[in-house]
Amino acid sequence: MIKEKEKMLAGDLYNPSDPELAKDRQNASQLVRIYNQSTETEVVKRVNLLKELLGSSGENVYMQPNIRFDYGYNTYVGDNFFANFDCTILDVCEVRFGDNCMLGPSVQIYTATHPLHPTERNSGLEYGKPITFGNNVWIGGSSVINPGVTIGNNVVIAAGSVVTKNVPDNVVVGGNPAQLIKHLEI
Amino acid sequence: MIKEKEKMLAGDLYNPSDPELAKDRQNASQLVRIYNQSTETEVVKRVNLLKELLGSSGENVYMQPNIRFDYGYNTYVGDNFFANFDCTILDVCEVRFGDNCMLGPSVQIYTATHPLHPTERNSGLEYGKPITFGNNVWIGGSSVINPGVTIGNNVVIAAGSVVTKNVPDNVVVGGNPAQLIKHLEI
Amino acid sequence: MIKEKEKMLAGDLYNPSDPELAKDRQNASQLVRIYNQSTETEVVKRVNLLKELLGSSGENVYMQPNIRFDYGYNTYVGDNFFANFDCTILDVCEVRFGDNCMLGPSVQIYTATHPLHPTERNSGLEYGKPITFGNNVWIGGSSVINPGVTIGNNVVIAAGSVVTKNVPDNVVVGGNPAQLIKHLEI
Repeated sequence: MIKEKEKMLAGDLYNPSDPELAKDRQNASQLVRIYNQSTETEVVKRVNLLKELLGSSGENVYMQPNIRFDYGYNTYVGDNFFANFDCTILDVCEVRFGDNCMLGPSVQIYTATHPLHPTERNSGLEYGKPITFGNNVWIGGSSVINPGVTIGNNVVIAAGSVVTKNVPDNVVVGGNPAQLIKHLEI
Repeated sequence: MIKEKEKMLAGDLYNPSDPELAKDRQNASQLVRIYNQSTETEVVKRVNLLKELLGSSGENVYMQPNIRFDYGYNTYVGDNFFANFDCTILDVCEVRFGDNCMLGPSVQIYTATHPLHPTERNSGLEYGKPITFGNNVWIGGSSVINPGVTIGNNVVIAAGSVVTKNVPDNVVVGGNPAQLIKHLEI
Repeated sequence: MIKEKEKMLAGDLYNPSDPELAKDRQNASQLVRIYNQSTETEVVKRVNLLKELLGSSGENVYMQPNIRFDYGYNTYVGDNFFANFDCTILDVCEVRFGDNCMLGPSVQIYTATHPLHPTERNSGLEYGKPITFGNNVWIGGSSVINPGVTIGNNVVIAAGSVVTKNVPDNVVVGGNPAQLIKHLEI
């Protein structure tokens, strides 16, 4: 029998009330709470908590509290990762960051989604789609990254963007929904 | 003499510095603070706090901290209500949810508004307009619902939407301001 | 030799890892944390903390927790300043408010920015641009104010706006990017 966790990671409909998943979310909530209650001088504690929480993390990784995660272990960050205040990552599927990614405040990254039809949605089954960021990506504050999106290398996402489609390398995008603003000469 | 609270609920200009209203907001702030300081294992405590805070609530109601309310008692939720992290509800007028409503993270619901003319606004008087949601509504993360809006049944509001007008049954809306994206066959 | 702090305030590229700036941010983080941990009855404590944190503040100044600041001392507010829940101000350059400014929940004000070219951005050097608000400005909830913007007197910014350009006196703006919605007769 396929476990709910495997279905979830595969992007299939799954039951989030599954006891294993509920326990994993509670573990993440505990680490997140301890992180958010830590003080500004406890930098080593914070870095260690991030290492414990995330699927993997490179050198020089930091997030300004408050952080929010569903699982944490489905989020993989490269070297030189910085997220400013109040980052929310719904990581029911994998979220992967390359190196040198920086996030402004209140960035929202959502792999989680639901069926559009109410009968299906009310069944409680849900699903997700992975999100991938290349290297050298700057996500402006208050941006929303939607399920299934792939962001290229050297991308700048303007503050307040709602990204609904893939973004190629070497561009600036912005708006709701996010559109091409300019090409960058790299 | 008409009490400020009555004016507020009626959608008339009222004085929020009124002692009764100030006390009610302080009561709500206390419940909200205790809720937000509770831990991930205190689920029963959270559910009881929501019952105490909200105007009414059905079966199976949950909100992920942090929550924010002005009064709490003006917010009425049906069965199977779920709000993800960091939901803000400014409920100076009534906010009513049908059954099976689910809110993504950082959803903002504002019944509160102010006069557009600065002299009137600086008087400190303000007013509100109620907001109503039908059954089976999914509000995507980071959406803003503006004062006076009525949302129908079986509605999906895309993440990052700013809803400024009524939304009929059986549709998906999105954007800023939110526009019709598609009709749903129900 | 020009100090990093002077470069920062002047809008030039500067190194945020500079020990003086790091210490100033840690001081601000401490005040902000104490503020956010205070309770709803500790109004005097909150007002005193704001006076200590901000560059200057007038009469009748209040912010609903949580608040977020980089430095605090670069933010100057006039009389009758009110910010609702969860206001974030990245004040690497000056943020100046006139009198009678009111902010809805989750307003984001960003003076901080980064080079668009990834090689420059990855150097760690960054820069900012000041933001100025006139008198009698109402910023609707969940709005984002971008670096370098000047907002006039008697301006209303609709909820969910992303302001990327200067806004003249006596207007309502809204949208992403924010556009003129109407002129106000003052």
